[in-house]
Amino acid sequence: MKNKKAVILLSGGLDSATTLAIAKSRNFDCYALSFRYGQRHETEISHAEKVADFLSVIDHRILDIDLAAFGGSSLTDKSMKVSKDRTNIGKGPIPLTYVPARNIIFLSYALAWAEVLGAFDIFIGVNAADYSGYPDCRPEFIEAFEKAANLATAAAVENKGTFKINTPIIEMTKAQIIKTGTALGFDYSLTHSCYDPDEAGRSCGHCDSCKLRLKGFAQANLKDPIEYQK
Amino acid sequence: MKNKKAVILLSGGLDSATTLAIAKSRNFDCYALSFRYGQRHETEISHAEKVADFLSVIDHRILDIDLAAFGGSSLTDKSMKVSKDRTNIGKGPIPLTYVPARNIIFLSYALAWAEVLGAFDIFIGVNAADYSGYPDCRPEFIEAFEKAANLATAAAVENKGTFKINTPIIEMTKAQIIKTGTALGFDYSLTHSCYDPDEAGRSCGHCDSCKLRLKGFAQANLKDPIEYQK
Repeated sequence: MKNKKAVILLSGGLDSATTLAIAKSRNFDCYALSFRYGQRHETEISHAEKVADFLSVIDHRILDIDLAAFGGSSLTDKSMKVSKDRTNIGKGPIPLTYVPARNIIFLSYALAWAEVLGAFDIFIGVNAADYSGYPDCRPEFIEAFEKAANLATAAAVENKGTFKINTPIIEMTKAQIIKTGTALGFDYSLTHSCYDPDEAGRSCGHCDSCKLRLKGFAQANLKDPIEYQK
Repeated sequence: MKNKKAVILLSGGLDSATTLAIAKSRNFDCYALSFRYGQRHETEISHAEKVADFLSVIDHRILDIDLAAFGGSSLTDKSMKVSKDRTNIGKGPIPLTYVPARNIIFLSYALAWAEVLGAFDIFIGVNAADYSGYPDCRPEFIEAFEKAANLATAAAVENKGTFKINTPIIEMTKAQIIKTGTALGFDYSLTHSCYDPDEAGRSCGHCDSCKLRLKGFAQANLKDPIEYQK
């Protein structure tokens, strides 16, 4: 029997890499989609390539999209400083690293590619640990997007299938994510999480993303294989 | 009192230009958003600029987005021929000019910009005449997207407001659209509809889009001010 196809959003980080490993373990033919979106950490993309390679995807597309054109996030706006400390984030629960409408844009592109491929499964590595900070990581958003996707597309209207947005790690802790990927044979040295790496690409160890990652490895009783700045 | 801001999707065609004229007539400060998406009719963009100028928008952004990377539409895929005749469209109700997931991508970008601007109104010129052909022009899709938008964004989570996707021409016939814009003082010579213009930018008069436009002007008892190929 022919495998079903899936489009997987891949950032080069730990969550999306694990999500791709899970999609592969479910026997999907995997098509990975990454974005260059004016983020300061372009090193993400080279990690996405390594991960896609390691997990033998059928195709990996990297799209240039111009989220920086609108500003509004410390990840894309060079005039804003990346927060390295949660106590510095300031008023309200939304971190400065939030990129306006990012996941809805990423999922829309994934949907476009899925429709052209004849795929009905899209995988995204949103995770509970991000709920409080990032509204577009919540299950209710994912469900609402799935509904819109099934109304937006010719494939759905012609009854060729129903799009499903798969979120296999949404309820996992970081430790569970790391244990799951490790059990599937994934090599986390290929991933990258830091918001603020140095010129050699080494992680800072102090930003929110590094802290979350290091805590995850500690709780999983595993050693993080990537290199940190001294 | 300060005017509210709105983001208006603007293609350079008749529908979106009228939609912008309506937003302006409702006293919004208008921010127009256009896309270069690998379409063959790049001349659209220059018309969008003229329309934005004529209607004195506060800002007009033109984003390059790579929908052609996925293929699947005669509008972005140079290997597919644009249909000039509805009887040639082939099997099923979806025209070859359908671009996979286009409106969901466009609306997602509009949402990103709106969030950065502090705008809660987005205008899109979807229209009933397109329902049968383009699934992402239907009111049920627009409603589903609006729901997803209000779950996706920090602005909505922080109770700063509720996003509204405005579709002022959705129930209008082409004739009604043209009459409405004309009554608002809009100059349709600035717009462009043809899928297949010649090198001088003149419309073919035979493609679906030209036919729909010409029929609209005829039914409105108005003369189409643009130039057609002999």
